[in-house]
Amino acid sequence: MKVSEVLHMNGGIGDSSYASNSLIQRKVIFMTKAIAEEAVSDVYCSMFPKTLCIADLGCSSGPNTLLVVTQTVKTVNKIRKKLCRQSSPEFQIYLNDLPGNDFNSIFRSLPRVQEELKEEIGSEFGPCFFNGVPGSFYSRLCPTSTLHFVHSSYSLMWLSQVPKGVEMNKENIYLASTSPPSVINAYYEQFQKDFSMFLKCRSEELVSGGRMVLTILGRKSEDPTSKECCYIWDLLAMALKQMVSEGLIEEEKLNSFGIPQYTPSPLELKAEVEKERSFAINLLEASEINWAACGNKLYSSDDSFKDDGYHVAKCMRSVAEPLLVRHFGESIMDKLFHKYGEILSDCMSKEETKFVNLTISMTKRE
Amino acid sequence: MKVSEVLHMNGGIGDSSYASNSLIQRKVIFMTKAIAEEAVSDVYCSMFPKTLCIADLGCSSGPNTLLVVTQTVKTVNKIRKKLCRQSSPEFQIYLNDLPGNDFNSIFRSLPRVQEELKEEIGSEFGPCFFNGVPGSFYSRLCPTSTLHFVHSSYSLMWLSQVPKGVEMNKENIYLASTSPPSVINAYYEQFQKDFSMFLKCRSEELVSGGRMVLTILGRKSEDPTSKECCYIWDLLAMALKQMVSEGLIEEEKLNSFGIPQYTPSPLELKAEVEKERSFAINLLEASEINWAACGNKLYSSDDSFKDDGYHVAKCMRSVAEPLLVRHFGESIMDKLFHKYGEILSDCMSKEETKFVNLTISMTKRE
Repeated sequence: MKVSEVLHMNGGIGDSSYASNSLIQRKVIFMTKAIAEEAVSDVYCSMFPKTLCIADLGCSSGPNTLLVVTQTVKTVNKIRKKLCRQSSPEFQIYLNDLPGNDFNSIFRSLPRVQEELKEEIGSEFGPCFFNGVPGSFYSRLCPTSTLHFVHSSYSLMWLSQVPKGVEMNKENIYLASTSPPSVINAYYEQFQKDFSMFLKCRSEELVSGGRMVLTILGRKSEDPTSKECCYIWDLLAMALKQMVSEGLIEEEKLNSFGIPQYTPSPLELKAEVEKERSFAINLLEASEINWAACGNKLYSSDDSFKDDGYHVAKCMRSVAEPLLVRHFGESIMDKLFHKYGEILSDCMSKEETKFVNLTISMTKRE
Repeated sequence: MKVSEVLHMNGGIGDSSYASNSLIQRKVIFMTKAIAEEAVSDVYCSMFPKTLCIADLGCSSGPNTLLVVTQTVKTVNKIRKKLCRQSSPEFQIYLNDLPGNDFNSIFRSLPRVQEELKEEIGSEFGPCFFNGVPGSFYSRLCPTSTLHFVHSSYSLMWLSQVPKGVEMNKENIYLASTSPPSVINAYYEQFQKDFSMFLKCRSEELVSGGRMVLTILGRKSEDPTSKECCYIWDLLAMALKQMVSEGLIEEEKLNSFGIPQYTPSPLELKAEVEKERSFAINLLEASEINWAACGNKLYSSDDSFKDDGYHVAKCMRSVAEPLLVRHFGESIMDKLFHKYGEILSDCMSKEETKFVNLTISMTKRE
């Protein structure tokens, strides 16, 4: 869940205040590390390319941005050593996000990261060329048949735009049990359109036998309004409704707001991949991560954190604030997220709440 | 002459206050347009690559940044039409500058530039993929044997560092008629080291038959202390010396300052290319441009400009200020450049003053 991706449909300027959100993303990257390693090993060992081209799509800018690509470089180096291959491939690394992403801060951190890689791996590893690629991953980003490994984490649940007819969804800001079928369909259709476009573009960019690993917020149930994916937004809608009742937000304003996200089921994801036909699925699995994983004292310098609800509110704020500010204005944000934090704390003290992640690993067909 | 390149040796953060400097650079790009067109036509027609890879090295961030690469795309399209070739190549475009360059502002301007290209060329032109490549062009930037056309304008006269022993140069800030031989040698050796490293890196990155066009501030004379290349800095040294005599700058401070630039002669440039052996020279020419070209009412919205010296001081300020601030501090800048403007005006009213540009066009040997 990246601010810059949220802003996709608004053409806005990214903001990098997502530090707390990055904790959960970091955990997810570690949870799916073995899957990414298998994919990159496979593509390396089946081709031994002179230059290994890697793309991280929706890379954002922050502590996790270079995590996957540096892991990939290390993995390849480990296998190379195991196979006693003398010469390392060169690494061409494409870091993609929307043009509003803060690429400057990524680029300024690169000399340090490259030094660290050199120190850890030693002099024998191949040169790494880092490229920033600004653009939407719902369009072409790289030349035809050039990529060996594509990775994307926590980005593809963001739609390219808010589905049409969102006013029919009334006080809901995302799908909910009270959403009319037309709204549910509009969200699903937007997901199908976006995700199939994503697959088409990547199938053109990947070499035959190239691999792709995507992790995306999703759900296990076939019901797109199920609690596992909608509850987190439902509670935010609750906070917004309280503010409507207090006269701080106009009801119409709330009714015209929608979160441009779709959290698919494994079957829905599979259906799109099969329809597009360019990819064979190697693995498709769902995993869960507690909402509470948004906070982690190990990663935080703020010792006053006492409340899981506070962490989750902070995390969701980093994700949703730019969208909310654009629609409702800046002034209500503190109050809104204070309320949201209270609601979250209350709910998390009573029940176990989890995000569902779907991870899909694919091979580009001949 | 780019701020970000000047900062190379200081590891600093680029600054984009070089707008007036960009006028002269824009003129130089137009002056050398035919040379770049010949080179890119040659490489396109001799290979018809599926993907044409273009690199602009030291691209800076401002109105000229995308000028050459968009010209290149238009040139290829024109030839393609003339040859009645249906399918356009894809364009992979690498925009390189140091990590401190403002890539964010380039990336944010890309959607508009891509729209304009589409409108001008029509739908039949191949997709253009823009990449930001942060790093020094005195090191490797791209994978082996991938580039078809490399371009660099007004960047390569900047050395990777101030040559050693600059204190021996006393009150001079660049080479001058009073510079001791040891200082002249140190400057020349640094140029040789840097430029041969540049050639080595590019020879690895270019495909056989690939083309490279470089424009660089230079001189016609074989004397590295000749007025044509040193006078502009000599006058700045004069302003600095005035400030020393007024007690505004310490003499020692001035003595330890040096401009990390070297403006080679055509023979010196040729010697390095021949020594390195990877490139055949197709063309090497010197051209001149008046100092007064720094200012141009056509490009300026400021109608109060009356004075050529003022324009040149403004232009040189955008180039040299970051270096000067780092050494002398911020506070003296206004006064320094006011003095420099006066000195420049006086000198320009009495004699014709010109920059010398060297343009070299090369082909990567088999």
